[in-house]
Amino acid sequence: MLRNILVLGAGKSTSYLLDYFLEKSNTEKLHLTIGDINPNAIPKTVKDHPNCTVIHLDILNNEHREKAIKDSDIVVSMLPARFHIMVAEDCVTLKKNLVTASYVSTEIKALHQSVKEAGLVFMNEIGLDPGVDHMSAMQIIDNIREQGGKMLLFESFTGGLVAPESDNNLWNYKFTWNPRNVVLAGQGGAAKFIQEGSYKYIPYHKLFRRTEFFEIEGYGRFEGYANRDSLNYRDAYGLQDVLTLYRGTMRRVGFSKAWNMFVQLGMTDDGYTIENSKGMSYREYTNLFLPYSPTDSVELKLRHYLKIDQDDSKWEMLCELNLFDGKKTIPMENATPAQVLQLILEDSWTLDDDDKDMIVMYHKFGYELNGKKSQIDSNMVVIGENRTHTAMAKTVGLPVAIATVLILNGKITTPGVQIPITKEVYDPILAELKDYGITFKEYEVPYLGYNPDAVGN
Amino acid sequence: MLRNILVLGAGKSTSYLLDYFLEKSNTEKLHLTIGDINPNAIPKTVKDHPNCTVIHLDILNNEHREKAIKDSDIVVSMLPARFHIMVAEDCVTLKKNLVTASYVSTEIKALHQSVKEAGLVFMNEIGLDPGVDHMSAMQIIDNIREQGGKMLLFESFTGGLVAPESDNNLWNYKFTWNPRNVVLAGQGGAAKFIQEGSYKYIPYHKLFRRTEFFEIEGYGRFEGYANRDSLNYRDAYGLQDVLTLYRGTMRRVGFSKAWNMFVQLGMTDDGYTIENSKGMSYREYTNLFLPYSPTDSVELKLRHYLKIDQDDSKWEMLCELNLFDGKKTIPMENATPAQVLQLILEDSWTLDDDDKDMIVMYHKFGYELNGKKSQIDSNMVVIGENRTHTAMAKTVGLPVAIATVLILNGKITTPGVQIPITKEVYDPILAELKDYGITFKEYEVPYLGYNPDAVGN
Repeated sequence: MLRNILVLGAGKSTSYLLDYFLEKSNTEKLHLTIGDINPNAIPKTVKDHPNCTVIHLDILNNEHREKAIKDSDIVVSMLPARFHIMVAEDCVTLKKNLVTASYVSTEIKALHQSVKEAGLVFMNEIGLDPGVDHMSAMQIIDNIREQGGKMLLFESFTGGLVAPESDNNLWNYKFTWNPRNVVLAGQGGAAKFIQEGSYKYIPYHKLFRRTEFFEIEGYGRFEGYANRDSLNYRDAYGLQDVLTLYRGTMRRVGFSKAWNMFVQLGMTDDGYTIENSKGMSYREYTNLFLPYSPTDSVELKLRHYLKIDQDDSKWEMLCELNLFDGKKTIPMENATPAQVLQLILEDSWTLDDDDKDMIVMYHKFGYELNGKKSQIDSNMVVIGENRTHTAMAKTVGLPVAIATVLILNGKITTPGVQIPITKEVYDPILAELKDYGITFKEYEVPYLGYNPDAVGN
Repeated sequence: MLRNILVLGAGKSTSYLLDYFLEKSNTEKLHLTIGDINPNAIPKTVKDHPNCTVIHLDILNNEHREKAIKDSDIVVSMLPARFHIMVAEDCVTLKKNLVTASYVSTEIKALHQSVKEAGLVFMNEIGLDPGVDHMSAMQIIDNIREQGGKMLLFESFTGGLVAPESDNNLWNYKFTWNPRNVVLAGQGGAAKFIQEGSYKYIPYHKLFRRTEFFEIEGYGRFEGYANRDSLNYRDAYGLQDVLTLYRGTMRRVGFSKAWNMFVQLGMTDDGYTIENSKGMSYREYTNLFLPYSPTDSVELKLRHYLKIDQDDSKWEMLCELNLFDGKKTIPMENATPAQVLQLILEDSWTLDDDDKDMIVMYHKFGYELNGKKSQIDSNMVVIGENRTHTAMAKTVGLPVAIATVLILNGKITTPGVQIPITKEVYDPILAELKDYGITFKEYEVPYLGYNPDAVGN
């Protein structure tokens, strides 16, 4: 008898997820049911697979949703995060396990006790970031601890970028995920982390100037800027006493310093709408943020305002985006500056059909073992196949899919609302991910920390 | 028979207000009742005046509040703005006129129809800013229009500063009003204004670098930075078609550029609390916002981070505030950066007993009359007497007091929730303010606007 997996939401990040279930459907005896509001968008190869059923499902229709969940053996929700709670509540009532790639919300967390008492597994944050980062970090951290080591430093950076072979713009960047999240990244509060035992805070308008650099063998140099709250997983990872805790986002070198121009101008602001945005040219939009002058050009005003020298490559980066174009116009009414910036960037940073994306992840683990300080750097690079089978869809979808089958097969059994930070979860998943080319390289490097000689301050 | 004026809240801005009522109490037949939660703080000369009664009043006690309002002929609320609505609702029910110096809130505005139907006058925004700014601006604007002129430009700036004779710090600034509002000034959204028909937006982190300069005869140079929304009174003033509309805050030259250091560091942020703030030294606080270094001093890190040259006077301005002091400590637990900055500034910027404050206001009116463009600049300077009888208390309290008596005497009669922008209100009040030395000087200057030759862009 087939086990029925219900996947809710078949958006662009689900290509590898659906393929995995269907490829395993005979050996693992799986039937896949996909519930989506727009089933037409699901590829024919998926829809027509003998072990697949597609149903039109409006997630807000309680009767239909409950029926679909009732008919399943396990539920995978790839819906936008705000819909998870309805699904989760049904799963408690109908006693179904649940898998999502999203952050654990307060509402989901509140279900922990009832999920546990029902003996159910609600596995969350099991995509890329969060997901692969948790698993790959905890495997090494647990290993260091098992040997008797004490953690001193943990840093972790992830980036969704364009692959070198498709990298043909000055920003070395294209959108591989939700563009709106990229435009708004870092907003909503100061970044917070710990370095050598000192708390550090960076306001948004300085965030993109406080980068660190990394080298990945074969891929060159990258940079990282801090996430909002690096201390989020301090307790979950058991790193309460660590001296340095820093999490961030990776970009190609030079991106952040150039992005900072948008921040300084105020173009990333999503808090107000521009008067008469509709029909405004890109040039007029740029001029909104510059002092008035009856004679000086928008170009010179911007160069002067942001102190961009004649020979600064940031200038070419702006020109490449057509920010000074007087003909291209904004189609939206009452748009915020951030919405317009997103539109302008999408003109230039959208993946072409045969473009490949690239996921990079970089961890640093500093620790003390037998009186000696050491450091392990580990990194992962995954290149996508094309615009549908992206590295992003692969690294998000496969951990979700593998976890789902492991739960079905009774290999992951610890009940409750959880994230993938225990051996039971990360060992089998990381092992299977290797078969798909999702692997980490580890390097033993000298431990430097930020204070090798333990000087004051 | 005496008319009973009820003043609710006798805080530090009410010295001139109370004195005015008592000085006029015999000629105008006034009795003053002061309701305050802490009557002990009211000066003896006020309390012991034969025409004054002081009552202990908890504004949240409905019975006591209603009784006090019922016994009065007119109510003046000098309470924190959030309490006005309770008082206003009682005033509607009990049919009493009301005067406040606060901005018209949405709730108060919603009472307009019932206030109007009851034939009552609710006069708001009749302090300094808002207040004197409305009246002095509208008197000139109405006058220009009466002559057939068309407004082209309106700019208005106000500042609460320290008088030249008490100005003994490098910032040329001391707190003359709520220090918290000074620390948070400009936050909560981009500044918005119009220059020569073009909308302009300035994000918070650039606000203090986009200043304008003014000269006031006998007082030297000042600078102004934009208020959050310069377009707030566009409709009320009838300036829908004006080319330039800009409202702002005045400081001594150099203040804003130096204040920008706090903004850049992130010290004005009120959105998160600092871990272990209690007992932290001023030096450690400063270091929270700087990159970690095992060897470099906090001083050098800050100079490098903010690009402060060896000979830049901004450096002395920071040192004067003891920002690098390792002995002075923060007494508050879980303080926000802004709360700590306020504490540090209060150490240095609190008025001494015999210090005098200074209020400055500067308006520019550009207009076209009979085919000719002209401009009037008008400014006001008021110097305080001491720390109690401040220029701030005078310029806030006297317009409130004068308006109250005018309403009592039936000279201001237009019913409804209103602000002082009509002749009926501003003419008699501005005339009487002159007797107290609150006067504007007017200068006819060439109209330059921002675009004297009407060049494009």
